[in-house]
Amino acid sequence: MRYRAVLAYVGTRFHGWQRQANAPRTVQAVLEKALSSFDGSPVKAHAAGRTDAGVHAEGQVVHFDLRRERAPERVRDAVNALLPEDARLLAVDFAAPEFHARRDAAWKEYLYRWSRAPVIAPRDAPFVAPISPRTEAARMRAAAEDLPGRRDFAVFGVRLPKGESTVRELHSVRIDEEGPEIRALLRGDAFLRGMARSICGLLADVGRGKAPVERVADLLRTGDRRGLAPKAPARGLTLVRVSYGDRA
Amino acid sequence: MRYRAVLAYVGTRFHGWQRQANAPRTVQAVLEKALSSFDGSPVKAHAAGRTDAGVHAEGQVVHFDLRRERAPERVRDAVNALLPEDARLLAVDFAAPEFHARRDAAWKEYLYRWSRAPVIAPRDAPFVAPISPRTEAARMRAAAEDLPGRRDFAVFGVRLPKGESTVRELHSVRIDEEGPEIRALLRGDAFLRGMARSICGLLADVGRGKAPVERVADLLRTGDRRGLAPKAPARGLTLVRVSYGDRA
Repeated sequence: MRYRAVLAYVGTRFHGWQRQANAPRTVQAVLEKALSSFDGSPVKAHAAGRTDAGVHAEGQVVHFDLRRERAPERVRDAVNALLPEDARLLAVDFAAPEFHARRDAAWKEYLYRWSRAPVIAPRDAPFVAPISPRTEAARMRAAAEDLPGRRDFAVFGVRLPKGESTVRELHSVRIDEEGPEIRALLRGDAFLRGMARSICGLLADVGRGKAPVERVADLLRTGDRRGLAPKAPARGLTLVRVSYGDRA
Repeated sequence: MRYRAVLAYVGTRFHGWQRQANAPRTVQAVLEKALSSFDGSPVKAHAAGRTDAGVHAEGQVVHFDLRRERAPERVRDAVNALLPEDARLLAVDFAAPEFHARRDAAWKEYLYRWSRAPVIAPRDAPFVAPISPRTEAARMRAAAEDLPGRRDFAVFGVRLPKGESTVRELHSVRIDEEGPEIRALLRGDAFLRGMARSICGLLADVGRGKAPVERVADLLRTGDRRGLAPKAPARGLTLVRVSYGDRA
């Protein structure tokens, strides 16, 4: 029986989503361990977005198969009792046998948070990257206007083996201010590995005047990685939502 | 030169405020270490509220003396750079030489958070205690009405040496609901050790029907500890504010 679940985690103490050979603590590893223990058989979990080390999720979506059919709420509560406190299944549902969390996703939404405050409260610190108090959201907004569209985003992603497409569609990049915070909400059909943090790093450099507003458009045109900024820190990034459009 | 500071901390990994002989990790210990290192001499810190192990603070107030006079913002930034990430000075000011964070406090406000949701998001879990979905805030509110006033709160506090007064003034206890959350906001001139969590534990039992609404009034009248509920878990409690009235 196939299930889909909405999963939230605080990424701080995870080495990202993906299970790795040398067995560090990853979200996939702790989730598969809990699912396998519940089901009494080895269970594989597949996520919509394979988040990097330190990146958080409020609305990751995963699918997995259990040998026997149990009520979704029973699965949710039993698996949560087996998970560490920094990961939780928020909701569990039955899914069609062919449902695939990543391939069927219509779009994903990532949120990046910066704070211009002189002090970030300890409660927020794991989720917010500090940035200069002189950072101008308006500059970031102007630069972000050049991003949406169906484009080759290769310059913002990790290099892929030749032949793999680096074309993605970014639906929107919204820059908001809330008190001393600046937030970027990126929605796209899919993201290259490292793309969200690379874009946010450049937006941060534009915001504090270290890069011109036109840099984003220049990079997309030339693909010249020398114009990139350092990736924005993982702690500021959260996968907030995965949508399945009509299939939701 | 005397300073006063507003201090925030996530209590999860602290054994409370107060420094202890066997040197566990306490807020006072890490703060005094940072202050002493900054000042180049041993510095003692005094807090308005000596929070228990696991209890959080968003607006703890402390005072301390530094050998030399430095600008408050310089103290704030330098000491924050020396503190672990789960404790931060939010604001620092000069204080009168006789200012005392605890003795001069006019009132303190504690917030307790429960959630009736079937799952608590990992981000909130360190700050919210789970409670039965059938818990009725209205019952808690009715019971809370018997608390405010200048009274002997001995039954709710740890036992004190004979002769020490257990009379305190509780100004208000407000019960609010926000979605699946129930919150109690307690304001008082001072709190006995353990008093906030003991009161909240009883309110929780009243809310889920394990104790009658009249239990609060009965306990205050009889002082009979056999009617007490288990203390509410530390994670749900936060010292949110300390007021100094006109002297603020």
